[in-house]
Parts: sequence; structure tokens; C-alpha cells
Amino acid sequence: MINEEILRNIKKHISLTEKETSFFISLITAKSLSKKALVLEAGQDCRYLSYVATGALRSYYTDKDGKESTIMFAIADWWITDMYCYLNKKPAMMNIETLEQSTIFQISRTNFDELLEKVPKFEKFFRILMQNAYTREQLRVMENLSSTAEERYQSFLIKYPQIVKQVTQKQIASYLGITPEFLSTLRKPKV
Amino acid sequence: MINEEILRNIKKHISLTEKETSFFISLITAKSLSKKALVLEAGQDCRYLSYVATGALRSYYTDKDGKESTIMFAIADWWITDMYCYLNKKPAMMNIETLEQSTIFQISRTNFDELLEKVPKFEKFFRILMQNAYTREQLRVMENLSSTAEERYQSFLIKYPQIVKQVTQKQIASYLGITPEFLSTLRKPKV
Repeated sequence: MINEEILRNIKKHISLTEKETSFFISLITAKSLSKKALVLEAGQDCRYLSYVATGALRSYYTDKDGKESTIMFAIADWWITDMYCYLNKKPAMMNIETLEQSTIFQISRTNFDELLEKVPKFEKFFRILMQNAYTREQLRVMENLSSTAEERYQSFLIKYPQIVKQVTQKQIASYLGITPEFLSTLRKPKV
Repeated sequence: MINEEILRNIKKHISLTEKETSFFISLITAKSLSKKALVLEAGQDCRYLSYVATGALRSYYTDKDGKESTIMFAIADWWITDMYCYLNKKPAMMNIETLEQSTIFQISRTNFDELLEKVPKFEKFFRILMQNAYTREQLRVMENLSSTAEERYQSFLIKYPQIVKQVTQKQIASYLGITPEFLSTLRKPKV
């Protein structure tokens, strides 16, 4: 399996020596997954942080009535996990599934801790990753509180044109917190 | 002004030498603010990240119709800013105001960059700060998508008992994305 994608992702924010690169590679595992494969199951230990090299993943929460809410999408070059549970060793609240055939790299919590301890410059890398994730979710909360469903849908199309190509309208609706039927009315051309 | 609170906050995650402590203190500024003081105004450059030593702050977004949405509260020992704008040098989208007389410490973006460059162990501190903020917002998105207003209100009371004591019901309603009138029906004892 080629590690080029994940190394390019790392190098956006930090430079690694050859030795550090080898060490990092020794800590990650590649997985080739078919469509609709379950990467994480709610209730289980969330042991892995995943980097998507190719394909697309989705995390979702299923409530007590069986209603699915999409928490996030991760297409090529994104990272995904149930972060709260990964960091706090709690049983996963979300499921994570592949939306198409995908290749991912995973780092276990133990290896993540070891990486940060032995190569502290990864603190910078993950600081930037976490702050980007934080600002993304904060903007989402802000939009959810202050924008109409139509505005949020338009904003989604602008912010994530690549994701739009890889996921279904039903999945986008469950990310925006609206019904697929309502999304379909938003998509109809206005007279 | 005593720096004890902010140093204790830092020491939760990293240990500083005396020299590093002095350097950090040289980069922060203390401010004593009266109630209803504006710490950040939408449209202006968001130059500061603030740590709340005493008191309480609130960030909020005002939409085009004048409706206010509370983005976050920050009571003693919390950090607050319009993170997206602080990091990306964009005009602030939110306002930040004091809810009561408060003492805060601020670090400018320039000093933040200098701190991370000269004392890289602060990368770890801010990685943890950002990951906590990320998971907090992700859980909030998940609750917003999958829980009723009543469940979200109950969850807020459990998660943030200290905040509940320092903010108004109207502010909590605007954090939960419901009207104050609806929140008041949730608070009435059930028959």
C-alpha cells in the first residue's frame, strides 16, 4: 500500500526526517474496504483514528427511535473518528461506515500516544487538525442556530462540493437535520 | 494582577520552567472588565484569545434580522474567542461580551504564534484545548440533530451546572436554539 497520501497530508503542517517518517509509518495500518463496511460500531471501544486515502466515509448516530443523524463525512484527505470516545476511552456513540470502496490508514490510540511522546512535533500537526475540526463544528453550530434549512443547504454545496458528488441527498439531509422530503423541495427550481 | 489562575490552567497539561513561565506571562495582558463590556465586536479584527480568570463571558452571533444566537459561554477557567477568525485573520463574525464583572487574560495572535514557535510544548497545551473544544462542539451538533429541546436542556443542566448559575434563561434558550417562551414551558413542573 502506498503511503504517499497520508505523508503529503502530514507535510502540509510539519516536516519529518526520514527516521521520523519510518517511525510514523510503523505506527499506522492500511485497510482496503468495500462499500458499506463498518469501520466503527456504536457501543464498541473506539480504538482508531482513520485517515481516508481514497473513497468516502460517514459517521452517524442512531437514536433510540432508529433515526440516523450524520455527524460528519470524510472524503479523500480527511481524518475521522468518534473523537470524544477515542480520546476518553469511552464506548463509541457513533457508527462509521464506508460510502464506497475506500482505502484508509489507521492509528490506534496507543500508537497515537506513543507518536506524540516520541515525536513531539506531531503535537503541532494534531493541534492544527483539532483546531480546524473545532472551527468547522463551531461554524456549523452557528449556522444551525441562525440560518434557514435552505441557507444551510446552499452553504453545504459551496463548502463541500467534492462531498456532494460522493454522498446521497438523504445523507446530506441527515447532516443538515432535515427530512429528505424537505431537502427535495429545497432543490426544486423556484418558479 | 495575579496570574495564578491561568498558570494553574496551563499546568493541567504541561510543565513550564521558570524562564518559560516568565516568557508566557510577558506575552499576556490582564484586563478588568465591568458587566456588559464588549470584548470583541463583529466585523472587527479578532486579535485576542481570552482566558477567563473570574466572571463570565458569552459569544453570540446576530443574524440579519437581529436575532441573537449564543455560540458559547465561558466562565472561570475557560478560554474563548471567535476561533475561526482569530486563526484565519478574518473579521469577527461574533460578538463577545461580559455577563458580569470579569477578569480576563488575553494573548494576541502575534504573541500566540511567537509562543508556539519559541516554546513548542505549548503545541501540546493548545492541541488538548482544541480537541476538548472540538469534541464539545461535536457532541453539541449530535445532540442538536438527535435530541428534543427538553433533552438538550436537561443535558445542559447536567453538563454545565456552574454556567447555569451565571447566565439568564434567555441566554440558555439562545444557546439551545429555542425561544425563551418555549424554555419556560420546559421548566414548568409536569403534572
